[in-house]
Amino acid sequence: MIDRRINHKDLRDLAAALLSAGGTDKSEVGTIADILVWTDLVGRSSQGIWRLKELLPRLRAGLIESPCSPKFTQKADGIVLVDGHNGFGRYVGHVAMSRAIELARRCGIGLAVVRNSSHFGAGAYYVHLAAQAGMIGFAFTNAPRRVAAHGGLRPIFGTNPIAFGAPLRDGHSVLIDFSTSMMAGSVLRQGLESNEPIPEGVAIDEHGKPTTNSTEVFAMLPFGGAKGYCLSLLVEILTGVITGSLMSFQIPSMLEKTQPVTRIGHFFLVIDIATLLPLPEYHERMAMLVAAIKDSPVQPGISEVLIPGEARWRSYLRQIKEGMLLDSKTIESLESLAAERKIATPW
Amino acid sequence: MIDRRINHKDLRDLAAALLSAGGTDKSEVGTIADILVWTDLVGRSSQGIWRLKELLPRLRAGLIESPCSPKFTQKADGIVLVDGHNGFGRYVGHVAMSRAIELARRCGIGLAVVRNSSHFGAGAYYVHLAAQAGMIGFAFTNAPRRVAAHGGLRPIFGTNPIAFGAPLRDGHSVLIDFSTSMMAGSVLRQGLESNEPIPEGVAIDEHGKPTTNSTEVFAMLPFGGAKGYCLSLLVEILTGVITGSLMSFQIPSMLEKTQPVTRIGHFFLVIDIATLLPLPEYHERMAMLVAAIKDSPVQPGISEVLIPGEARWRSYLRQIKEGMLLDSKTIESLESLAAERKIATPW
Repeated sequence: MIDRRINHKDLRDLAAALLSAGGTDKSEVGTIADILVWTDLVGRSSQGIWRLKELLPRLRAGLIESPCSPKFTQKADGIVLVDGHNGFGRYVGHVAMSRAIELARRCGIGLAVVRNSSHFGAGAYYVHLAAQAGMIGFAFTNAPRRVAAHGGLRPIFGTNPIAFGAPLRDGHSVLIDFSTSMMAGSVLRQGLESNEPIPEGVAIDEHGKPTTNSTEVFAMLPFGGAKGYCLSLLVEILTGVITGSLMSFQIPSMLEKTQPVTRIGHFFLVIDIATLLPLPEYHERMAMLVAAIKDSPVQPGISEVLIPGEARWRSYLRQIKEGMLLDSKTIESLESLAAERKIATPW
Repeated sequence: MIDRRINHKDLRDLAAALLSAGGTDKSEVGTIADILVWTDLVGRSSQGIWRLKELLPRLRAGLIESPCSPKFTQKADGIVLVDGHNGFGRYVGHVAMSRAIELARRCGIGLAVVRNSSHFGAGAYYVHLAAQAGMIGFAFTNAPRRVAAHGGLRPIFGTNPIAFGAPLRDGHSVLIDFSTSMMAGSVLRQGLESNEPIPEGVAIDEHGKPTTNSTEVFAMLPFGGAKGYCLSLLVEILTGVITGSLMSFQIPSMLEKTQPVTRIGHFFLVIDIATLLPLPEYHERMAMLVAAIKDSPVQPGISEVLIPGEARWRSYLRQIKEGMLLDSKTIESLESLAAERKIATPW
């Protein structure tokens, strides 16, 4: 089995066919397929099409509902509460961010807080939605418990990622998207699957001792010590406490045998730039900042200073043009899912 | 000269007298004195009363205007733009955050962006203002250029701190407040004044090599590598780009000989919790989260897991009760400022 290059439209059609055959409501199929493929296009394959092998069984087991018919409750002029009814996190996230964008058009600033959702994939997708609308976006989510507080032993927080996006003149965007833990959850998962050691200093065993053996991991550590812990807590307050959803420490890990409904919380905040300054002036100012960063001499051993998201957009353009590079494991899992549902693969 | 314990009200009166004698408008004196003393009370003395020896000469030199008569321009229902007219950052920050709180009462969420301000001290003060109003607050600011982009050599960003606050039932608050650089600017300043080495791995010289000699520091590094860089950039976009203020890379360091008006930008965002859930329910949920964190067993060598802000509130209560502990350098500088203006010190 070798890596393959596949046209992104073909892959999108395959994802849609698999989602449909798996029982996803047709009102949701297109959005979810688009998000999965976009995520692979920008090179975040750990949150991309590969996830179908996890999403479809969860849908079948009733851990994800479709259609989820999210319920929107307007709580104030600038705030909407979205009940995701345990739907696909990607669908719930898309409609919630879209609503936050609408609110921002009205109030200058808009907030959608979400309860009872599930894993939403890469936050970068949602903040790019805002950027495409000429807005600045934030997307936070909590997640199953995995990360200890600074100095603590027990997993309290999820990887609680932070995403932030701001438009660039070329239609792309500054894309910030990182977990507030030392490593992303997918790194631990890959360690468990491959039996390879994980990096030093990112996780502890049940006695609080550092470990590089993924099977001994009791808790992951927040990044940057106390500062990362502060950010994990910030995300938890915004996604767990004020949403009325589960808090990370109440959400069992998806790696655990008993797989309950996750009831994850999200937070989508949007600022309409044009209320503050005309968009051309904004782009002029952003270009000055980007130039100041890119024109800086580099530290020894560094070839280039990158703007956050720059590598993602290079991946995007390359894969749109040359086809998407899928690894053999992903190919294999897609073939197996397709065969089970008697769907032809595009290769 | 020895350290002294001073009643906080006496210190507040002294600060007010010094500010008045220095030419601060009487409409601004009380607010600035309160903020300086509060900052010392919570133990952030690097941003406290000690700063008078820097503020008063800047006021005299015309680098700070008083009264600054901030100009408020309502840009949308939820957004106000504040022109600080080069006033005291602490005063401008206070009135801007207060306005954001008012907007949040109306829209559920409120944003004040500020241009043409100066150093606002500790962000914790402003987010605690929001917390006292039953709201969640964010406060960001840019600052004179000191911090390189990840991989870059030239200082682009200020220490660009992030502050976040959320109310606790006892009237205190979760207080997150940290610079997005490896070390706070005040650590570098202390290194320069004391000729002591700075910690390893936090700064580079003009060739990009790590240095612990503060006189060789060409740029400080962002904390947590690429993630800290992302946060520095996030703060810069929100405080420098969209406010129409100077961007950090355009603001000369306060350590440089030529001291211009700083024209710093701030960003104050507030969410009115009660629009989402009743405050008693919020407090119940926060207490559950705090308990989950505090009840965690600790890692080896750690005595206690702290909630961000917990140490600050302990300092606050102790110093309110026992008097404020000022170090001899601060005492000396206050005595010198007071003598110059023929003001009696309370000791």
